Amino acid sequence: MEHIPILRVGNFLLVTVQVELHDQLAMRLQDDLTQAIVQHGARGVLIDISALQLVDSFTGRMLANISLMSRVLDAETIVVGMQPAVAITLVELGMEMREIRTALNVDKGIAILQSLLPGGLEGRNGG
Amino acid sequence: MEHIPILRVGNFLLVTVQVELHDQLAMRLQDDLTQAIVQHGARGVLIDISALQLVDSFTGRMLANISLMSRVLDAETIVVGMQPAVAITLVELGMEMREIRTALNVDKGIAILQSLLPGGLEGRNGG
Repeated sequence: MEHIPILRVGNFLLVTVQVELHDQLAMRLQDDLTQAIVQHGARGVLIDISALQLVDSFTGRMLANISLMSRVLDAETIVVGMQPAVAITLVELGMEMREIRTALNVDKGIAILQSLLPGGLEGRNGG
Repeated sequence: MEHIPILRVGNFLLVTVQVELHDQLAMRLQDDLTQAIVQHGARGVLIDISALQLVDSFTGRMLANISLMSRVLDAETIVVGMQPAVAITLVELGMEMREIRTALNVDKGIAILQSLLPGGLEGRNGG
Protein backbone atom coordinates (compact mmCIF):
# COMPACT_ATOMS: atom_id res chain seq x y z
CA MET A 1 0.00 0.00 0.00
CA GLU A 2 1.30 3.39 -0.93
CA HIS A 3 -1.00 5.70 0.93
CA ILE A 4 -3.93 5.91 3.31
CA PRO A 5 -7.01 7.23 1.53
CA ILE A 6 -8.65 10.38 2.83
CA LEU A 7 -12.39 10.38 2.28
CA ARG A 8 -14.48 13.48 2.12
CA VAL A 9 -17.77 12.79 3.84
CA GLY A 10 -19.95 15.86 3.71
CA ASN A 11 -17.79 18.68 4.97
CA PHE A 12 -15.37 16.69 7.01
CA LEU A 13 -12.56 14.30 6.23
CA LEU A 14 -12.41 10.67 7.30
CA VAL A 15 -9.26 8.60 7.53
CA THR A 16 -9.27 4.95 8.56
CA VAL A 17 -5.88 3.73 9.66
CA GLN A 18 -5.70 -0.01 9.03
CA VAL A 19 -1.99 -0.65 9.06
CA GLU A 20 0.87 0.36 11.29
CA LEU A 21 1.98 3.89 10.52
CA HIS A 22 5.59 3.41 9.53
CA ASP A 23 7.73 6.48 8.81
CA GLN A 24 7.03 7.01 5.15
CA LEU A 25 3.33 6.25 5.37
CA ALA A 26 2.90 8.63 8.30
CA MET A 27 4.72 11.44 6.49
CA ARG A 28 2.58 10.89 3.42
CA LEU A 29 -0.56 10.97 5.55
CA GLN A 30 0.51 14.26 7.13
CA ASP A 31 1.13 15.74 3.70
CA ASP A 32 -2.08 14.42 2.15
CA LEU A 33 -4.26 15.35 5.08
CA THR A 34 -3.05 18.91 5.53
CA GLN A 35 -3.40 19.42 1.78
CA ALA A 36 -6.93 17.98 1.81
CA ILE A 37 -7.94 20.25 4.70
CA VAL A 38 -6.87 23.31 2.75
CA GLN A 39 -8.26 22.07 -0.56
CA HIS A 40 -11.71 21.19 0.75
CA GLY A 41 -11.92 23.82 3.46
CA ALA A 42 -12.59 21.05 5.93
CA ARG A 43 -13.33 22.04 9.52
CA GLY A 44 -13.24 18.55 10.96
CA VAL A 45 -11.12 15.43 10.63
CA LEU A 46 -12.03 11.99 11.91
CA ILE A 47 -9.27 9.41 12.26
CA ASP A 48 -10.57 5.91 12.85
CA ILE A 49 -8.04 3.59 14.49
CA SER A 50 -10.42 0.75 15.36
CA ALA A 51 -8.36 -1.65 13.25
CA LEU A 52 -5.21 -1.00 15.27
CA GLN A 53 -4.78 -3.58 18.00
CA LEU A 54 -1.50 -2.10 19.16
CA VAL A 55 0.29 1.21 18.87
CA ASP A 56 3.83 2.22 19.57
CA SER A 57 5.10 5.61 20.66
CA PHE A 58 5.80 6.60 17.05
CA THR A 59 2.19 6.07 16.06
CA GLY A 60 0.98 7.92 19.14
CA ARG A 61 3.24 10.84 18.32
CA MET A 62 2.07 10.85 14.70
CA LEU A 63 -1.57 11.02 15.77
CA ALA A 64 -0.78 13.88 18.11
CA ASN A 65 1.17 15.69 15.39
CA ILE A 66 -1.60 15.31 12.84
CA SER A 67 -4.07 16.66 15.37
CA LEU A 68 -1.88 19.70 16.08
CA MET A 69 -1.25 20.36 12.38
CA SER A 70 -4.97 20.24 11.67
CA ARG A 71 -5.63 22.65 14.50
CA VAL A 72 -3.14 25.12 13.07
CA LEU A 73 -5.20 24.90 9.88
CA ASP A 74 -8.37 25.54 11.91
CA ALA A 75 -9.72 21.99 11.68
CA GLU A 76 -10.58 19.88 14.71
CA THR A 77 -9.36 16.29 14.78
CA ILE A 78 -11.17 13.51 16.60
CA VAL A 79 -9.54 10.10 16.95
CA VAL A 80 -12.27 7.47 17.05
CA GLY A 81 -12.53 3.75 17.65
CA MET A 82 -9.56 3.34 19.94
CA GLN A 83 -9.30 -0.20 21.29
CA PRO A 84 -9.04 -0.53 25.07
CA ALA A 85 -5.62 -2.18 24.75
CA VAL A 86 -4.40 0.80 22.76
CA ALA A 87 -5.51 3.23 25.45
CA ILE A 88 -3.68 1.15 28.05
CA THR A 89 -0.52 1.04 25.95
CA LEU A 90 -0.52 4.78 25.27
CA VAL A 91 -0.73 5.65 28.93
CA GLU A 92 1.86 3.03 29.83
CA LEU A 93 4.14 4.60 27.25
CA GLY A 94 3.72 7.86 29.11
CA MET A 95 1.69 9.42 26.31
CA GLU A 96 -1.28 11.17 27.79
CA MET A 97 -2.40 12.35 24.39
CA ARG A 98 -3.72 15.62 25.75
CA GLU A 99 -3.49 17.07 22.25
CA ILE A 100 -5.99 14.56 20.96
CA ARG A 101 -9.72 14.54 21.27
CA THR A 102 -11.24 11.09 21.16
CA ALA A 103 -14.67 9.58 20.67
CA LEU A 104 -15.96 6.05 20.87
CA ASN A 105 -16.98 5.78 17.22
CA VAL A 106 -17.50 7.79 14.04
CA ASP A 107 -21.06 8.79 14.92
CA LYS A 108 -20.04 10.17 18.29
CA GLY A 109 -17.07 11.89 16.65
CA ILE A 110 -19.37 13.62 14.19
CA ALA A 111 -21.61 14.72 17.05
CA ILE A 112 -18.61 16.24 18.85
CA LEU A 113 -17.46 18.05 15.71
CA GLN A 114 -20.93 19.44 15.18
CA SER A 115 -21.09 20.73 18.74
CA LEU A 116 -17.55 22.16 18.62
CA LEU A 117 -17.79 24.06 15.42
CA PRO A 118 -20.00 27.11 15.31
CA GLY A 119 -22.18 26.80 12.26
CA GLY A 120 -21.75 23.05 12.21
CA LEU A 121 -19.76 21.35 9.54
CA GLU A 122 -20.25 23.71 6.67
CA GLY A 123 -17.06 24.12 4.73
CA ARG A 124 -15.23 27.38 4.64
CA ASN A 125 -15.18 27.68 0.89
CA GLY A 126 -18.61 29.20 0.78
CA GLY A 127 -18.18 31.80 3.51
CA MET B 1 -4.08 -6.79 9.59
CA GLU B 2 -6.80 -9.10 10.73
CA HIS B 3 -9.90 -7.40 9.45
CA ILE B 4 -11.23 -4.44 7.52
CA PRO B 5 -13.08 -2.07 9.83
CA ILE B 6 -16.71 -1.29 9.09
CA LEU B 7 -17.66 2.21 10.14
CA ARG B 8 -21.16 3.29 10.89
CA VAL B 9 -21.66 6.81 9.57
CA GLY B 10 -25.16 7.98 10.30
CA ASN B 11 -27.42 5.24 9.01
CA PHE B 12 -25.11 3.72 6.49
CA LEU B 13 -21.97 1.64 6.65
CA LEU B 14 -18.62 2.65 5.22
CA VAL B 15 -15.81 0.27 4.37
CA THR B 16 -12.49 1.43 2.98
CA VAL B 17 -10.53 -1.33 1.32
CA GLN B 18 -6.85 -0.46 1.51
CA VAL B 19 -5.23 -3.82 0.91
CA GLU B 20 -5.68 -6.60 -1.54
CA LEU B 21 -8.64 -8.77 -0.57
CA HIS B 22 -7.06 -12.17 -0.13
CA ASP B 23 -9.29 -15.15 0.62
CA GLN B 24 -9.49 -15.01 4.37
CA LEU B 25 -9.82 -11.24 4.54
CA ALA B 26 -12.61 -11.25 1.96
CA MET B 27 -14.53 -13.96 3.81
CA ARG B 28 -14.18 -12.07 7.05
CA LEU B 29 -15.41 -8.89 5.37
CA GLN B 30 -18.47 -10.70 4.02
CA ASP B 31 -19.25 -12.06 7.48
CA ASP B 32 -18.66 -8.77 9.28
CA LEU B 33 -20.55 -6.68 6.78
CA THR B 34 -23.67 -8.82 6.55
CA GLN B 35 -23.72 -9.00 10.33
CA ALA B 36 -23.32 -5.23 10.62
CA ILE B 37 -26.16 -4.64 8.14
CA VAL B 38 -28.50 -6.73 10.24
CA GLN B 39 -27.26 -5.39 13.56
CA HIS B 40 -27.55 -1.72 12.63
CA GLY B 41 -30.49 -2.03 10.27
CA ALA B 42 -28.38 -0.31 7.64
CA ARG B 43 -30.00 0.46 4.31
CA GLY B 44 -26.85 1.52 2.50
CA VAL B 45 -23.25 0.37 2.25
CA LEU B 46 -20.39 2.36 0.75
CA ILE B 47 -17.23 0.52 -0.21
CA ASP B 48 -14.33 2.82 -0.98
CA ILE B 49 -11.64 1.26 -3.15
CA SER B 50 -9.73 4.43 -3.99
CA ALA B 51 -6.59 2.96 -2.44
CA LEU B 52 -6.62 -0.03 -4.79
CA GLN B 53 -4.42 0.58 -7.80
CA LEU B 54 -5.07 -2.85 -9.21
CA VAL B 55 -7.69 -5.53 -8.83
CA ASP B 56 -7.76 -9.15 -9.90
CA SER B 57 -10.79 -11.21 -10.82
CA PHE B 58 -11.06 -12.54 -7.26
CA THR B 59 -11.41 -9.04 -5.83
CA GLY B 60 -13.91 -8.12 -8.53
CA ARG B 61 -15.98 -11.19 -7.74
CA MET B 62 -15.81 -10.45 -4.01
CA LEU B 63 -17.12 -6.92 -4.55
CA ALA B 64 -19.95 -8.27 -6.68
CA ASN B 65 -20.77 -10.93 -4.06
CA ILE B 66 -20.82 -8.43 -1.23
CA SER B 67 -23.12 -6.22 -3.25
CA LEU B 68 -25.51 -9.11 -3.93
CA MET B 69 -25.48 -10.26 -0.31
CA SER B 70 -26.28 -6.77 0.89
CA ARG B 71 -29.14 -6.56 -1.57
CA VAL B 72 -30.62 -9.78 -0.24
CA LEU B 73 -30.55 -8.07 3.15
CA ASP B 74 -32.29 -5.03 1.64
CA ALA B 75 -29.26 -2.76 1.68
CA GLU B 76 -27.89 -1.02 -1.39
CA THR B 77 -24.14 -1.12 -1.99
CA ILE B 78 -22.24 1.57 -3.82
CA VAL B 79 -18.60 1.05 -4.73
CA VAL B 80 -16.86 4.42 -4.73
CA GLY B 81 -13.47 5.82 -5.66
CA MET B 82 -12.58 3.32 -8.37
CA GLN B 83 -9.32 4.25 -10.09
CA PRO B 84 -9.43 4.48 -13.90
CA ALA B 85 -6.88 1.67 -14.20
CA VAL B 86 -9.12 -0.57 -12.10
CA ALA B 87 -12.11 0.06 -14.36
CA ILE B 88 -9.97 -0.83 -17.37
CA THR B 89 -8.70 -4.00 -15.73
CA LEU B 90 -12.17 -5.16 -14.69
CA VAL B 91 -13.56 -4.83 -18.20
CA GLU B 92 -10.46 -6.45 -19.69
CA LEU B 93 -10.99 -9.34 -17.28
CA GLY B 94 -14.46 -9.70 -18.73
CA MET B 95 -16.13 -8.50 -15.55
CA GLU B 96 -18.79 -6.03 -16.42
CA MET B 97 -19.79 -5.65 -12.81
CA ARG B 98 -23.43 -5.22 -13.63
CA GLU B 99 -24.27 -6.20 -10.07
CA ILE B 100 -22.42 -3.23 -8.71
CA ARG B 101 -23.46 0.38 -8.51
CA THR B 102 -20.57 2.79 -8.55
CA ALA B 103 -20.02 6.44 -7.76
CA LEU B 104 -17.04 8.73 -8.13
CA ASN B 105 -16.58 9.41 -4.44
CA VAL B 106 -18.20 9.00 -1.03
CA ASP B 107 -20.23 12.18 -1.31
CA LYS B 108 -21.74 11.16 -4.62
CA GLY B 109 -22.34 7.67 -3.25
CA ILE B 110 -24.29 9.12 -0.33
CA ALA B 111 -26.34 11.22 -2.74
CA ILE B 112 -27.21 8.10 -4.76
CA LEU B 113 -28.18 6.17 -1.64
CA GLN B 114 -30.39 9.01 -0.51
CA SER B 115 -32.15 9.15 -3.86
CA LEU B 116 -32.53 5.36 -4.07
CA LEU B 117 -33.95 4.73 -0.67
CA PRO B 118 -37.44 5.94 0.05
CA GLY B 119 -37.35 7.75 3.34
CA GLY B 120 -33.66 8.45 2.95
CA LEU B 121 -31.12 6.80 5.14
CA GLU B 122 -33.12 6.27 8.28
CA GLY B 123 -32.36 2.93 9.83
CA ARG B 124 -34.95 0.20 9.98
CA ASN B 125 -34.66 -0.35 13.70
CA GLY B 126 -37.13 2.39 14.45
CA GLY B 127 -39.76 1.43 11.91
